[in-house]
Amino acid sequence: MSVSREAFEQRDRDDPLAGRRDLFVLPDGVIYLDGNSLGALVRTVPERMRSAVEDEWGSGLIRSWNDADWYTAPQRVGAQLAALVGADADEVIVCDSTSVNLFKVLVAAARLEPTRRTIVTDETTFPTDAYITTEAAGLTGTVVSSVAPDEVVAAMEAAGEDLLAVSLTDVDYRTARRHDMRAITQRAHELGGLAVWDLCHSAGVLPVDLAGCSVDLAVGCTYKYLNGGPGSPAFVFVAARHLDAIQQPLPGWHGHARPFALEAAYEPAPGIIRMLSGTAPQLGLLALEAALTAYKDVALDDVRAKSVALTEAFIELADERLAAHGFTVASPRRSAERGSHVALGHDHAYGITQALIARGVIGDFREPNLVRLGFAPLYVRHVDVWDAVELLVDVMERKEWSDAAHQQRNAVT
Amino acid sequence: MSVSREAFEQRDRDDPLAGRRDLFVLPDGVIYLDGNSLGALVRTVPERMRSAVEDEWGSGLIRSWNDADWYTAPQRVGAQLAALVGADADEVIVCDSTSVNLFKVLVAAARLEPTRRTIVTDETTFPTDAYITTEAAGLTGTVVSSVAPDEVVAAMEAAGEDLLAVSLTDVDYRTARRHDMRAITQRAHELGGLAVWDLCHSAGVLPVDLAGCSVDLAVGCTYKYLNGGPGSPAFVFVAARHLDAIQQPLPGWHGHARPFALEAAYEPAPGIIRMLSGTAPQLGLLALEAALTAYKDVALDDVRAKSVALTEAFIELADERLAAHGFTVASPRRSAERGSHVALGHDHAYGITQALIARGVIGDFREPNLVRLGFAPLYVRHVDVWDAVELLVDVMERKEWSDAAHQQRNAVT
Repeated sequence: MSVSREAFEQRDRDDPLAGRRDLFVLPDGVIYLDGNSLGALVRTVPERMRSAVEDEWGSGLIRSWNDADWYTAPQRVGAQLAALVGADADEVIVCDSTSVNLFKVLVAAARLEPTRRTIVTDETTFPTDAYITTEAAGLTGTVVSSVAPDEVVAAMEAAGEDLLAVSLTDVDYRTARRHDMRAITQRAHELGGLAVWDLCHSAGVLPVDLAGCSVDLAVGCTYKYLNGGPGSPAFVFVAARHLDAIQQPLPGWHGHARPFALEAAYEPAPGIIRMLSGTAPQLGLLALEAALTAYKDVALDDVRAKSVALTEAFIELADERLAAHGFTVASPRRSAERGSHVALGHDHAYGITQALIARGVIGDFREPNLVRLGFAPLYVRHVDVWDAVELLVDVMERKEWSDAAHQQRNAVT
Repeated sequence: MSVSREAFEQRDRDDPLAGRRDLFVLPDGVIYLDGNSLGALVRTVPERMRSAVEDEWGSGLIRSWNDADWYTAPQRVGAQLAALVGADADEVIVCDSTSVNLFKVLVAAARLEPTRRTIVTDETTFPTDAYITTEAAGLTGTVVSSVAPDEVVAAMEAAGEDLLAVSLTDVDYRTARRHDMRAITQRAHELGGLAVWDLCHSAGVLPVDLAGCSVDLAVGCTYKYLNGGPGSPAFVFVAARHLDAIQQPLPGWHGHARPFALEAAYEPAPGIIRMLSGTAPQLGLLALEAALTAYKDVALDDVRAKSVALTEAFIELADERLAAHGFTVASPRRSAERGSHVALGHDHAYGITQALIARGVIGDFREPNLVRLGFAPLYVRHVDVWDAVELLVDVMERKEWSDAAHQQRNAVT
């Protein structure tokens, strides 16, 4: 590879996504490599929030549930997200958190396959997913088989006719290691089970192909690459073939067949609407909807290509310039097996991350020893990769990091 | 009672809460009697949302989880709410929706009392509460005894030693009929069971006394009298005596004893934090926090006194001037038994509600035949009561209402 900043500048000039960066608010003096945790602010959002708060809430008041189409926002925004994850518009809805939605789909999965009792997951999954899976299993009389990532298929085969579902995180939150969604889903189906995927670290940055992979159920958050804002509502996908039969455990009147009849007995609405529970968080939904304009007319293949280019360049520079300072590459080296962030291992990862942030390169620390840097292709430039490595080398040479005790309060995944 | 508008104007001059109305944005030409469904916009909120979006998210980015204290917002806002429902600051946390939180506390209740199997509720409860209760019972191997409101105590006694919990909505969403929280909670305890209360229609408008009544668990929304905005996050209360033992079914890393260790096994944090599931909806939380400034230094007894005065006056005027037009009072006539809204029964309730809204008096229709009007004491004036009745009489005399088919899309409770 070329090792000059000028070469990276040239890549930015050649980047078909270069213009997208102007759609975002990015503070001066910051190289933001944490869009895998909280996506940056899209410029359309502040005015949309102002109008949502002042005009729709302040002046429209309760009338805005109809007049401003608040009531249909979960479906409407879900349909926009569907296009980004390879689903049909009526297979995705936005509501609640990833955790809550994962609980819904796992319990629903157990009801779709009542004679099967084993949920296979992997032990590196995001901790909340593990906690929720344990609870969903406990409450439905099923069991969890949690194994190393490369033992997932073997565990599915060991479960055999008892395989209820495989439930995995597409891209690992620490290392960005990807599972093979297509192959694992296919194997689950061959065994008669279902496939459930958590897309938190892939939605918006990988061309996820839920339909092409025949995925059954999926969930994901919207505040990472989708830029929905802090704690923005999550999404849930149910393949159309399951929509008539699915019974989720947190039903609400918004998901009722006749919501305004407010009937004492639950009868699910046709379609994806039945996945709704309580009243949707409107401000978060509307911020997300405005943020999704940044994806208008974007080809996800371009996003993926740039993601690969950025992460490959970073890994190459890490090998060349950071290995001597004690860094190892903890993420997969093969791009096909990696999402859009890169984790570097280092004994002093915590202090180094803090020193980097002080220099304006914002990434985050992950236990036990990882500096995690995310490359959001809509606004991270190739020169940002170069400059981040330069600054990291400088931090190491100047020994700017310290081994001060880890703070319990830290950045949010 | 006096029957002149001047007398109502005098009541407003004498109203110790009169100045609070200026804290709210209220559109011209509107008498807003739906604050029991979506509270009005507090003037502090738009600027708070602007700074949250532009400064904290846009410039602070991921750092705002620490630097802007996003991370502690669920506890911080919960502590503010606690003061409004008679709880200690560390017994309330803000997160998720009422529906999701009700599921958490009902499953947790079953785990607190594993030898008991009957949950008593009443058949007029809010439908989502009924659906969630059915699910929580089904998943925990318990049963629901759903009876008429005045048969709740008998049903509890019939359950006897099998009584797991009584779970009720404090103020009925249609008629505003109140249960006797103190007596029912005490009876549940005498029988060895728990008491769970839904405070959606009472938080912020009644001096709820969770501690004084020894309530065990409670939930409620924040977008009605608490003015948190559309779909703002809900709250959950767990009495301090249960906090060490409670095990909720939707655990997340935010509620872990060591959240940033991101451990594969769940260990709940000490205290109310363990009730958290996924990442909290920050924009909604921060809007709610700003909205709660409207309650600063408010005495809830003053709020209640004004609520009683407004609803009593409305009922008296309804008897005098609306009965002849076919209206009946569907809410309890005794103020002690009534929350802060009044439901009028009428065969043409739907069309009348639409006609009223067209005249600027915003209430809502509830099946099967109710015009529901809410009186939020922080911004509804005594003259609003007078004027609303005047307009309603005028609508009836001019026959402005029509019997057009009910729309399925309607206002949200």
